[in-house]
Amino acid sequence: MLRKSRLFTPGPTPLLPVAAQAMASADIHHRTADFRALYQRVLSDLRVFIGTGNPVVLMASSGTGAMEAAVANLTSPGEKVLVLTAGKFGERWRALCKAYGCDTQQVTAEYGQAIPLEAVRGKLTPEMRVVFVQATESSTGARHPIAQIARLARENGSLLVVDAITGLGTTELDVDGWGVDVIIGGSQKALMIPPGLAYCAVSERAWQAMEKSKNPRFYFDLRKERAAGEKGESAFTPAIALVAALGAALDYIRAAGSGDLAAGRDALIHNAETAAGMTRAAARALGLQLFAPDAPSNALTAVVPPANVDSGVIVKDFRERFGAVVANGQGEMKGKIFRIAHIGYYDYLDTMGIIGALEHVIAKVTSPKHVEFGAALRAAQEVYIRAATSAQSLVASR
Amino acid sequence: MLRKSRLFTPGPTPLLPVAAQAMASADIHHRTADFRALYQRVLSDLRVFIGTGNPVVLMASSGTGAMEAAVANLTSPGEKVLVLTAGKFGERWRALCKAYGCDTQQVTAEYGQAIPLEAVRGKLTPEMRVVFVQATESSTGARHPIAQIARLARENGSLLVVDAITGLGTTELDVDGWGVDVIIGGSQKALMIPPGLAYCAVSERAWQAMEKSKNPRFYFDLRKERAAGEKGESAFTPAIALVAALGAALDYIRAAGSGDLAAGRDALIHNAETAAGMTRAAARALGLQLFAPDAPSNALTAVVPPANVDSGVIVKDFRERFGAVVANGQGEMKGKIFRIAHIGYYDYLDTMGIIGALEHVIAKVTSPKHVEFGAALRAAQEVYIRAATSAQSLVASR
Repeated sequence: MLRKSRLFTPGPTPLLPVAAQAMASADIHHRTADFRALYQRVLSDLRVFIGTGNPVVLMASSGTGAMEAAVANLTSPGEKVLVLTAGKFGERWRALCKAYGCDTQQVTAEYGQAIPLEAVRGKLTPEMRVVFVQATESSTGARHPIAQIARLARENGSLLVVDAITGLGTTELDVDGWGVDVIIGGSQKALMIPPGLAYCAVSERAWQAMEKSKNPRFYFDLRKERAAGEKGESAFTPAIALVAALGAALDYIRAAGSGDLAAGRDALIHNAETAAGMTRAAARALGLQLFAPDAPSNALTAVVPPANVDSGVIVKDFRERFGAVVANGQGEMKGKIFRIAHIGYYDYLDTMGIIGALEHVIAKVTSPKHVEFGAALRAAQEVYIRAATSAQSLVASR
Repeated sequence: MLRKSRLFTPGPTPLLPVAAQAMASADIHHRTADFRALYQRVLSDLRVFIGTGNPVVLMASSGTGAMEAAVANLTSPGEKVLVLTAGKFGERWRALCKAYGCDTQQVTAEYGQAIPLEAVRGKLTPEMRVVFVQATESSTGARHPIAQIARLARENGSLLVVDAITGLGTTELDVDGWGVDVIIGGSQKALMIPPGLAYCAVSERAWQAMEKSKNPRFYFDLRKERAAGEKGESAFTPAIALVAALGAALDYIRAAGSGDLAAGRDALIHNAETAAGMTRAAARALGLQLFAPDAPSNALTAVVPPANVDSGVIVKDFRERFGAVVANGQGEMKGKIFRIAHIGYYDYLDTMGIIGALEHVIAKVTSPKHVEFGAALRAAQEVYIRAATSAQSLVASR
């Protein structure tokens, strides 16, 4: 059969066609009324998408750029910070804090686990300026308990910075209600456009704390971006084509919510939740072990391969027989897990397709008789039926 | 008549259609053999485009990001540096060096002038670590004497960092021959793709100097990008769609050189030179004063409006009657000059079209009888005929 190339990776995720078209025809200048109107609309829509009343800034960089902005703007050399880490992106917080000379304390959990709250409580001391964590750790597929971590940070008087690059649009996050001071997102995730834009929402407490930071900063000076954004501009030349794509993607999400962007965002979260539930049920039906069974993220599902099988073989077979790009483990997890993404632009057909392929791939690396073809697909359908029913009631009760 | 919207701004410049198409269909993952091959080819092609044997790094940011990378990686707080400034982008070097706590000395020239070499010589002292300058100052349309500045920096033992964001692809720059240690470019200029990528080539002397810098750096750590680039990867998630566009643009430039990328780059420089020459001759034929007559850049032509006319009126009329977006002056030059770009994807028809429009626009703000319609166009044609003849001889003598 034909093999269409399809991404099932937790970023980049499949491009939204209308956004790709907007990007290709964005032959406009950024210091014009047209672009200012677009930029202002995008900033305002991002606030709704994030679910915050705090100012949002957008920058031309990968998500790591926004992570660096948080560290550079909120800390000073020698200050105590707390990094909560249970995977590769938690380790990036640690590397960043060390690069900026922070006195970096940490709470670690095993890969695949959520951050344990008791350990956080034990590490928090009054001089701890900032706590850094991920909403969902894309390297393991685990979700961290942000509501509870936010309460602990708040009680301790610390700022909380959440990398929600794969959390936004897949996970309910009550940013202002919980008191998340900085929340960070990236373009190539639930927003369904290519990488190259990062964004964050920043609380009043955090804006005030920035004034005290002694770190050098220029390109990532969030205050500069905020001031420019208030005039519908970016501090430096914006990634125009990506901003146009982002505008189209936010319009698409709004349309998915029948004109209500927040409802569209909730539908997107429900979509990821359903796809994740279907995939987890399918993996279990195949007798496969989930890598993060206790606190699974909706952004992606990390699956442990059958005994003595390198996950690279599975990733390769997905690509070679079915054109589907799933992710191997990263760093020390390479060969030990494979990861199927649900974040962004996936529908029922995509999800059932990849689960069908999963049956063939697993059948090939185990003894075929261990796989009962159709069982994983049926398990996924049952999840779908329950989810569709609950979504219908949700709509009916509005 | 219809008004097609066209950019005549010195960045963003008009999108190359094949690059826009490549961007819109770049639905690929960055940790794959296909993307690695693309990334490696782009890095290698950029070396040819720049004309250097030095390693090139690419980053997801605006050009200012690469400028910050040069400051963050090559200086330490309190160190003496020399900024050469005669416009808005020279002032950005100064702001960056100050943000990083450098002891920032400067040589300034009037807006529209080139940096005076005698003043540079007078300011260079043995402890001056780095000299920062623009190849062409896009805010004024002036070109700085990089060959001579490089000789002075070299004799003094200083590193030379050149922002060639509008210089590359418009201006002959013998990067290695002159000894430019860091040369910086951006995607939205001669490379004819949208903003969002910056790149730089770095000399062995500069790589060594980086080891001594005491500044914090993570996202803009050039050493990290170099190491990743050698494996065909980026240190952080790359702006995939823009990288795909860049690959297509470099292929287009190669094709313009009949399969020889360096020849294609030279053809692009000759193209900008011809368009600039045509535009300058046209402005003179209309009795207009050039803002940088002594050392004009090929990237753009800055023109002084007729007496008592705000250049904003001219910019507006270009847009409203002809759909052509030309640039006003920036900062303190706003209202005092207008700028027509020649960098990147412009041909004879574009150039004649904008010059024809210029005659109408100038006729409107002066007394019509002061404009002899067709005279500026004829002056441009004479320049074109001379340039085409010399280009033909060039090809014949190869």
